[in-house]
Amino acid sequence: MSIITLLTDFGLKDAYVGLMKGVMLSINPSAVIIDLTHHVAPHDLTQAAFIINSSYRYFPAGTVHVIVVDPGVGSRRSIVVVRMMGHTFLAPDNGILTLLIDKADIDAMVRVENSDYFLESVSQTFHGRDIFAPVGAHISLGIDLNVLGMPIANKNGLVRMNIPKPYVSGQNELVGSVITIDRFGNCITNIDSECLERFCRAGALKKLQIVFRQSKIDGVSKNYESAGPQSPLAVIGSSGYLEIAVNCGSARRYFGIEKGDSVRLIISDQL
Amino acid sequence: MSIITLLTDFGLKDAYVGLMKGVMLSINPSAVIIDLTHHVAPHDLTQAAFIINSSYRYFPAGTVHVIVVDPGVGSRRSIVVVRMMGHTFLAPDNGILTLLIDKADIDAMVRVENSDYFLESVSQTFHGRDIFAPVGAHISLGIDLNVLGMPIANKNGLVRMNIPKPYVSGQNELVGSVITIDRFGNCITNIDSECLERFCRAGALKKLQIVFRQSKIDGVSKNYESAGPQSPLAVIGSSGYLEIAVNCGSARRYFGIEKGDSVRLIISDQL
Amino acid sequence: MSIITLLTDFGLKDAYVGLMKGVMLSINPSAVIIDLTHHVAPHDLTQAAFIINSSYRYFPAGTVHVIVVDPGVGSRRSIVVVRMMGHTFLAPDNGILTLLIDKADIDAMVRVENSDYFLESVSQTFHGRDIFAPVGAHISLGIDLNVLGMPIANKNGLVRMNIPKPYVSGQNELVGSVITIDRFGNCITNIDSECLERFCRAGALKKLQIVFRQSKIDGVSKNYESAGPQSPLAVIGSSGYLEIAVNCGSARRYFGIEKGDSVRLIISDQL
Repeated sequence: MSIITLLTDFGLKDAYVGLMKGVMLSINPSAVIIDLTHHVAPHDLTQAAFIINSSYRYFPAGTVHVIVVDPGVGSRRSIVVVRMMGHTFLAPDNGILTLLIDKADIDAMVRVENSDYFLESVSQTFHGRDIFAPVGAHISLGIDLNVLGMPIANKNGLVRMNIPKPYVSGQNELVGSVITIDRFGNCITNIDSECLERFCRAGALKKLQIVFRQSKIDGVSKNYESAGPQSPLAVIGSSGYLEIAVNCGSARRYFGIEKGDSVRLIISDQL
Repeated sequence: MSIITLLTDFGLKDAYVGLMKGVMLSINPSAVIIDLTHHVAPHDLTQAAFIINSSYRYFPAGTVHVIVVDPGVGSRRSIVVVRMMGHTFLAPDNGILTLLIDKADIDAMVRVENSDYFLESVSQTFHGRDIFAPVGAHISLGIDLNVLGMPIANKNGLVRMNIPKPYVSGQNELVGSVITIDRFGNCITNIDSECLERFCRAGALKKLQIVFRQSKIDGVSKNYESAGPQSPLAVIGSSGYLEIAVNCGSARRYFGIEKGDSVRLIISDQL
Repeated sequence: MSIITLLTDFGLKDAYVGLMKGVMLSINPSAVIIDLTHHVAPHDLTQAAFIINSSYRYFPAGTVHVIVVDPGVGSRRSIVVVRMMGHTFLAPDNGILTLLIDKADIDAMVRVENSDYFLESVSQTFHGRDIFAPVGAHISLGIDLNVLGMPIANKNGLVRMNIPKPYVSGQNELVGSVITIDRFGNCITNIDSECLERFCRAGALKKLQIVFRQSKIDGVSKNYESAGPQSPLAVIGSSGYLEIAVNCGSARRYFGIEKGDSVRLIISDQL
């Protein structure tokens, strides 16, 4: 079995994703193709970077992850394949792998240039179908990555993205921001549990004030049900990041939160 | 082959569903995973109960149905697995199986508690990925259900939901309600064909008046095309329930119908 | 392996697509079922005709394409299966195959009438589940198409649709229209690259003016990035048709374009 995941901003309204799968199955008929999501906001590299970073580890070793959020399609941006932690990532070299590449040693890095592994006719506007799909399918068949193009000597050869990171401001304040809002209206920040624990001495989670827009929440709860129905709370969500939520409701609607909003954490001795 | 169906309110905007599939394939690489739908309205247990009840029988015997509409995630609600009619249902014990459990004898009922079958680290907010997915995958491998936890002695041990049922009011009136509205704007009620036939003596379908909001429809048609284009009609829909529809149009928009609206059926001798 | 593609207007909000897959897997457990898209605008035969025409060739020979955009469900419209170019198409006989059937010789054409290959109980409103799914699955098993019903002697026996075609108006003007708008807001016309090249002598692409609404674009670009960020351009899109686009933006929003808008091409010697 070989698993290929797809992460794109193509949506499902058009046949784009279906076409990628057709091309892949033409090359590797036994590929099992799993949609991570195709609803990344159009061209939102940051959101895609967070999703792949918190997703890959739930797939078996050997999985090929094909990521096509690619505002530069048809331009001179290149395509890279990176193998690390037992997984293989195929993506435009536009910074989308930024959160991954410092996590562990990289076993192989190649710039994809060999058109023998592309569709015969490559359009200028849909490399997902014409390059990513066939190359991803060939990788899932176990080809030597070096046939795809020149190895990249050093991970500094990869484009990095400026991903907003939480920072400490003053003595008692940690400033992060909302990276993505999920279907339920949970507002997920860029503050992960490690960062949170470093910031507030262990055990002080209950003493945190989470401040955003004109609102604040006291303390970090264990789960959604820690607050009453329709009541707001902060919680470490399933991807390991702090999120602002409303039990059985939508924090997005409740507070009017938008992607990019800043979120300040303050240690309060009054709590 | 082992088929697993997924029915959730997770939507497809996030990677939640993809992660469940990754976990499942890590455990059972040959599972065939089919999406029933992930667009149950958030936390709408009634809608989910109707969908699973009208869907399971179109899958082969042996299918494992994993249902995660779970407003109580992280709280003390438990998780159950119920085997009946050749199918296996894994769901929160929140009443979502109410329409199924009286349909036939139950072959096995177990409360899922053995964390050996969960992911190693279980989050408080995403049991779909951390408990339902791995347990569902193990079930699809054919494990003995009793390894998952304690058997439930009696179906009265399962939580039931108060699902609105049609009732007879006065001599000539049957009162039901709109349970769900589909993508085409067809408004599906809780009145199934058996109930309808019991109510109006066989053959009297044409004498029914269907009354809702400020509108009424005369008679139950055989198919959408029985009415002219853009004209309203009532019909027994594909799931076996009475629905209000507009041929080549949307009854939701045409009449302004909303989920929960009451629908009265009156036998009229004037028709 | 046998691949089945699905192209419908069912959406993913309901379980309709999941039910079709359950029926298919009950008949052919090893079918690989790929969604082309289920978001064809309800009853939009033209859009479906364009999608299947530009999609089928990316799947391996032997693929069965099941197309259910079927406003006439339950009426007397018939169902046909057409085998050509190594692919098999199963669809209502409502014109949805119009763009395909003149492309090449037809190897087999049958009107589907043998209810032995349908579900035992056929509803009047969901032939996707009750007829198309089981018949498609049987075809994917390799049955002789002639068991399904009477052969159609001549392709004139198939219903054709009036699909808007581009036409030459006056000496220097080609008039087409917007057929579909994709998720990114790219507005795809019915003018394909061949038609474009016939119209403007080879090499004159840069001299074209593309006129629509109150706007115009000069020249046809090679890719989206040929224009500056957020700037409009015209380009031959990935399906081979001329589209109006905005680099990293939405032409639909930028210009207020709607499906059906006319698009005029003028050869200008001033460019």
